[in-house]
Amino acid sequence: MNDELLKQGRESYSWARHNMPAVLLAESAVKKKKRLPFKGLLLAASLHVSKETAVLLCALKNLGLSIKLAAANPLSSQSDIVAYLNSEGIEVNAKREESISEYNAALRHLARSEPDLIVDDGGQLHVEYWKSKVDSCFGGTDETTSGTHRLRALDARGELKYPVIVVNEAKTKYLFDNRYGTGQSSIDGVLRATDALLAGKVVVVAGYGWVGKGVAMRARGFGSRVIVTEVSPLRATEAYLDGYDVMPMQRASSLGDIFLTCTGQTDAISKEHFLKMKNGAVVGNCGHFDTEINVRQLVALSSSIELVRANLERYNIGKSKAIYLLCQGRVVNLVAGEGHPPEIMQFSFANQLLCLDYLVSNRSEIARGKIKLLSVPEQIDDLVSEFALRCFRLDIDKLSAKQKKYGWSFIR
Amino acid sequence: MNDELLKQGRESYSWARHNMPAVLLAESAVKKKKRLPFKGLLLAASLHVSKETAVLLCALKNLGLSIKLAAANPLSSQSDIVAYLNSEGIEVNAKREESISEYNAALRHLARSEPDLIVDDGGQLHVEYWKSKVDSCFGGTDETTSGTHRLRALDARGELKYPVIVVNEAKTKYLFDNRYGTGQSSIDGVLRATDALLAGKVVVVAGYGWVGKGVAMRARGFGSRVIVTEVSPLRATEAYLDGYDVMPMQRASSLGDIFLTCTGQTDAISKEHFLKMKNGAVVGNCGHFDTEINVRQLVALSSSIELVRANLERYNIGKSKAIYLLCQGRVVNLVAGEGHPPEIMQFSFANQLLCLDYLVSNRSEIARGKIKLLSVPEQIDDLVSEFALRCFRLDIDKLSAKQKKYGWSFIR
Amino acid sequence: MNDELLKQGRESYSWARHNMPAVLLAESAVKKKKRLPFKGLLLAASLHVSKETAVLLCALKNLGLSIKLAAANPLSSQSDIVAYLNSEGIEVNAKREESISEYNAALRHLARSEPDLIVDDGGQLHVEYWKSKVDSCFGGTDETTSGTHRLRALDARGELKYPVIVVNEAKTKYLFDNRYGTGQSSIDGVLRATDALLAGKVVVVAGYGWVGKGVAMRARGFGSRVIVTEVSPLRATEAYLDGYDVMPMQRASSLGDIFLTCTGQTDAISKEHFLKMKNGAVVGNCGHFDTEINVRQLVALSSSIELVRANLERYNIGKSKAIYLLCQGRVVNLVAGEGHPPEIMQFSFANQLLCLDYLVSNRSEIARGKIKLLSVPEQIDDLVSEFALRCFRLDIDKLSAKQKKYGWSFIR
Amino acid sequence: MNDELLKQGRESYSWARHNMPAVLLAESAVKKKKRLPFKGLLLAASLHVSKETAVLLCALKNLGLSIKLAAANPLSSQSDIVAYLNSEGIEVNAKREESISEYNAALRHLARSEPDLIVDDGGQLHVEYWKSKVDSCFGGTDETTSGTHRLRALDARGELKYPVIVVNEAKTKYLFDNRYGTGQSSIDGVLRATDALLAGKVVVVAGYGWVGKGVAMRARGFGSRVIVTEVSPLRATEAYLDGYDVMPMQRASSLGDIFLTCTGQTDAISKEHFLKMKNGAVVGNCGHFDTEINVRQLVALSSSIELVRANLERYNIGKSKAIYLLCQGRVVNLVAGEGHPPEIMQFSFANQLLCLDYLVSNRSEIARGKIKLLSVPEQIDDLVSEFALRCFRLDIDKLSAKQKKYGWSFIR
Repeated sequence: MNDELLKQGRESYSWARHNMPAVLLAESAVKKKKRLPFKGLLLAASLHVSKETAVLLCALKNLGLSIKLAAANPLSSQSDIVAYLNSEGIEVNAKREESISEYNAALRHLARSEPDLIVDDGGQLHVEYWKSKVDSCFGGTDETTSGTHRLRALDARGELKYPVIVVNEAKTKYLFDNRYGTGQSSIDGVLRATDALLAGKVVVVAGYGWVGKGVAMRARGFGSRVIVTEVSPLRATEAYLDGYDVMPMQRASSLGDIFLTCTGQTDAISKEHFLKMKNGAVVGNCGHFDTEINVRQLVALSSSIELVRANLERYNIGKSKAIYLLCQGRVVNLVAGEGHPPEIMQFSFANQLLCLDYLVSNRSEIARGKIKLLSVPEQIDDLVSEFALRCFRLDIDKLSAKQKKYGWSFIR
Repeated sequence: MNDELLKQGRESYSWARHNMPAVLLAESAVKKKKRLPFKGLLLAASLHVSKETAVLLCALKNLGLSIKLAAANPLSSQSDIVAYLNSEGIEVNAKREESISEYNAALRHLARSEPDLIVDDGGQLHVEYWKSKVDSCFGGTDETTSGTHRLRALDARGELKYPVIVVNEAKTKYLFDNRYGTGQSSIDGVLRATDALLAGKVVVVAGYGWVGKGVAMRARGFGSRVIVTEVSPLRATEAYLDGYDVMPMQRASSLGDIFLTCTGQTDAISKEHFLKMKNGAVVGNCGHFDTEINVRQLVALSSSIELVRANLERYNIGKSKAIYLLCQGRVVNLVAGEGHPPEIMQFSFANQLLCLDYLVSNRSEIARGKIKLLSVPEQIDDLVSEFALRCFRLDIDKLSAKQKKYGWSFIR
Repeated sequence: MNDELLKQGRESYSWARHNMPAVLLAESAVKKKKRLPFKGLLLAASLHVSKETAVLLCALKNLGLSIKLAAANPLSSQSDIVAYLNSEGIEVNAKREESISEYNAALRHLARSEPDLIVDDGGQLHVEYWKSKVDSCFGGTDETTSGTHRLRALDARGELKYPVIVVNEAKTKYLFDNRYGTGQSSIDGVLRATDALLAGKVVVVAGYGWVGKGVAMRARGFGSRVIVTEVSPLRATEAYLDGYDVMPMQRASSLGDIFLTCTGQTDAISKEHFLKMKNGAVVGNCGHFDTEINVRQLVALSSSIELVRANLERYNIGKSKAIYLLCQGRVVNLVAGEGHPPEIMQFSFANQLLCLDYLVSNRSEIARGKIKLLSVPEQIDDLVSEFALRCFRLDIDKLSAKQKKYGWSFIR
Repeated sequence: MNDELLKQGRESYSWARHNMPAVLLAESAVKKKKRLPFKGLLLAASLHVSKETAVLLCALKNLGLSIKLAAANPLSSQSDIVAYLNSEGIEVNAKREESISEYNAALRHLARSEPDLIVDDGGQLHVEYWKSKVDSCFGGTDETTSGTHRLRALDARGELKYPVIVVNEAKTKYLFDNRYGTGQSSIDGVLRATDALLAGKVVVVAGYGWVGKGVAMRARGFGSRVIVTEVSPLRATEAYLDGYDVMPMQRASSLGDIFLTCTGQTDAISKEHFLKMKNGAVVGNCGHFDTEINVRQLVALSSSIELVRANLERYNIGKSKAIYLLCQGRVVNLVAGEGHPPEIMQFSFANQLLCLDYLVSNRSEIARGKIKLLSVPEQIDDLVSEFALRCFRLDIDKLSAKQKKYGWSFIR
């Protein structure tokens, strides 16, 4: 069984690696400057234990890092990847379907292992490290909007002690990853969990940030009618002009066939909405944390709960109504699907790798700086853009000398 | 293990049944006329052994039929459904991943079991029955374009001895099932097998019949650029006006990232095309039979073959090129995915059920007829349309008396 | 002024001719058999007096026909084209914005001029000819669904005395012309008349035949949310699965921003709907006849009517509500826009030309036949398909010998 | 004639006003603070002389401003609007189809008239004012990306003497106006000028900024196949992931049927591209200035030039090739069409009005500031967002108290 898992993990890793040349380009770019720039350093990483993560971590290991990994979500770890990473000498503190306490214990363990660097997806590991009062870390990164919120809160209290690069705000991250990656993989997750026909269905997308835009676009691409709910007037107007119905969740509740939360918020769907939903409504979450759907309130409303198929539970409310919950409210694309396709993930992870190199290379300078939450340096963002052209084999125009001067010419 | 399978099969069946009210409406409509209209009759059915098929067969069993089932494809049978159907007293002659000889033997066994009725998907069982020289059957149906071709060939030679209703030509079948069902589930199958990002990819769709239209539409809906290849000037022009690139397969071969055959033909992709493909091209089939991609020629070209993940094989050609084949060239949506979503399948199967009732109820009249290949009676097609409105809870307008007379008014 | 008009007409004709190579291919194909096949014959034609029609008529004149033309719609005639056709020796009985009685008189005049052949768009000329009791005509054609309805009514009473080819039922007509031609040009007409932003608007499309499909597709393509109303369960289901909202017109009335009728029926929008519409609703017709919107009832409801801009009238209802009517309820794409783009129109007109040749070439045979309403002969439809490939410079695959035999191979 | 023009101008103005409630909301908001806040001040405005501009200027006049207007483009002025504005006491220095020297003279005249405020669209009036050495102006605004470039050049040389608010960078401007406004109206302009069928055509969009995104989206929405050219790796990748073909203009030149420039640059299409284009290619510009297509080089290549229809010229190159140029290379949506629909334009103009109020209200403070190029104040952007909700009658969610605190909760 373990041999089988390991073999499967190796295949899975190889397939992802084949589809993530940008990570390898980043690894090469760093190696060109110095063969083992990370030698002697320990990285604590809280990431989704997926084939794509394995590609990043193996590239970092090749550059000399020691690595300890915990899951970024208690339900999303792939057993075969756990096996493979262990065989590669990376310490994995995660397993398929762990309990919340196991998940938290793993984060605590990592925080206390005195890491030099922290890579996080959601900010939970940064928060655990802060709670642990350890003082070993000199720099970190975070992958998501959700994590950025948490880090900003810490920073505002003056309690963020080391610089963290907010990878989510790289253009080559949020423009690609959230729309195309989460968009496709969330719908993919819904299909795997439900086998539902999307054509004709009313899909309610809560939140029209980059993730919501991607999910709405792909739901429409499969023939669904999309309703968007928002709290921002600007984004609501954008959704309207993009041709979607826009209304408050309270009104959408009675119209939707499938609900997908993309808010980065808590309680995007709660009791008052469950009460108005149609019999047979399907509810799922595409955001990082499982707080977007108030599952506790759904449980309280239900007389019984049954597992219908993997990742699909039926909550029976009263005599004639059932609501179907996807993945217990955890992020649909990673729990029911495989997360972002590797071809998208490669750019976020190329950013991650180059940012770690930047933190190490500029350690003393950065340490002196007062600003703790850093943007991805523009040259890294630009380099990853160039990688994207190479990965997708795109050939584009260059500005001519005349064009470079244009704009100035008018005032001469 | 068997208990687990049976439980899973029952859940799977329940979920499909929940999503196929049209089959239950058809069952009720028949039952209203007579409680057990099929009593004493034996049905031989060659269908994909899926949760949706289970819903049809259980409804038929409830109407009194005895049933023997074989697979319509050697790779597409679901083990849990086999277990469930067996438990329901339906004889299943199929298993997950059977060999070609097992598959053929099962068809032969059914043909020789002296069935009264034959339900087929692809026409292979009708052909086997014809070869077997048995003379028990008084009527049948077939589900697909591919089957219709075979039956037409038999009929042209005067060797079709019993009436067969060509369900594929019902408007409520081909307008819904092929476009929305195969379209969605084929792309779903590609995602499950490859986890590939579709955005930006060049997807080559061979054939722009109803299946090709559906696959092209959904590939575009996920951000792919689509090239259509065709042999019909009319359909080629339609694809062009729908905004797709149109060109011969020979030219498309060097441009495509993913190739999907939807032709109902043989050799839509063959040696000359493999030779021109890019390194990393992915090739799959959405048509009924595995003849659309000439796998034998691909094997001959390759120095080695590796399984990359479930349903994805890598064919290594020369030193620097690999072609990835989906599902061994068998129908992608059923082998890598779950086939048409139940909500679509319900209309084809409502047609099937009502057509069997029609054959039994009008047995003597039909027998006297000279025409052996019958269309779905218009009243059945209309009834299934009405079911569709009910299933999707659609409310529509009715012609007023004035409108009914309109058109005639001009010549008075 | 007249010189200016003539010059403009010639330019307009040239631009259309440049974009209608299929009509020239048809002319050549006929000329190859005989230089002046139509010599000595008189054609009465009721067509939209547009640049595209000029291309057809000049091609027919080149083949020897004498031609008298009347408008197919009192509002759609282009003055410059009238001038140009007159200069080419074609008798035009039409002008920009003629009254209903002028329009009818022109049709009567044509009917009584003892034509040998009749080409019609909407069937009104055929009906006038039937009323006139003249007996000169030996064959005709008609272009539209609306015309087909009228001819069928005549035929059912046994009063259609000469064969008429129903061009609308050619695949190369209805598959292209209605969806892509009417779709684009109707939306174009709405934009020219209103300068409205379509993004976000609710567009109600009445009828989901080929025209409705085209209009819905293009409205969505400009960012509108589309509601479809239908009377056919089948087409309603198709619209639903294509991702449109489907509901009765009564309900849609209070939701729509823009209403477009595509039904071929009378009273698709009438009093009960006007009463429920929002202040500011815009109402237009994309069907052939101006019966789809009950304008008389709208007038009766209104306290005053003002012209807002060309082709846009404001109907004031009560104190706080206005409804905007496009083109007085006449066909939007021809009155506010330029009708189908020439590149689409060329296929209908190539069919027209080849059908007239067919009627003349097979005159005696057809006369003996009992069936009066004829389909476009398959070889003509196929030839026009081939023209389409040439016009759009499309290169496609051909069936191999092996593929031609496929399907039969299974029963050997 | 003049009476007719004036009447038409008044109607046109009324129709625009009806569709621009946001400008009226802005006027009210300002008036609520002070009845005539602009009394005694002179505004020099260089704007497209369109019905929408009339709505802005009349609102400003109602607030007490004296106004002198010049065109922002020599070809885009509407004669009826000139007549109407004159009748309202606004001095208009523009006419339909003015020469370049007339256009420049008008700008010079305005610059020298010692304005207190300057509103510009493209930055040319700001540049003229700078050249004129007058010193009366204490604040201004500019509407476009092109203008921002020019102002930045001036500012970099330390020669921008008064604060200018860059309206283009308001979210409620660039997110709405460029994509939905320019997108729709540019395609509308192409249709009016050419009557071309868009379905199936290859449309080459140069530049994938907000304008290019809008034009590409709408061309696709009408069935075109779109090729994007870019100089930015990031935007090129975005276009690719949005499903467009991406390549250098040199390669696109031989593939395109219609070319539309959206770069804000010079020479996006020049000699080397004309040489590779197909016979019949159509070329047009959607950017502010007429430098994007190098028309001089096209003239030099051509043996003759003919006007085909309004706004469409045929350039004959050698014996067998013609290239069609739209609107002499000037901005297609304003010259061949009516510019942005009023419903979109209202938000830019609400921003303009509120920014002028801001400049006047905060005159002394701003004057002391060192930064001369100002962003639209966030509170104005937010207010316009709120107007958008009201104009489109959108109802949205509000954050609950619990949600407002979320994000902070994790670190407690």
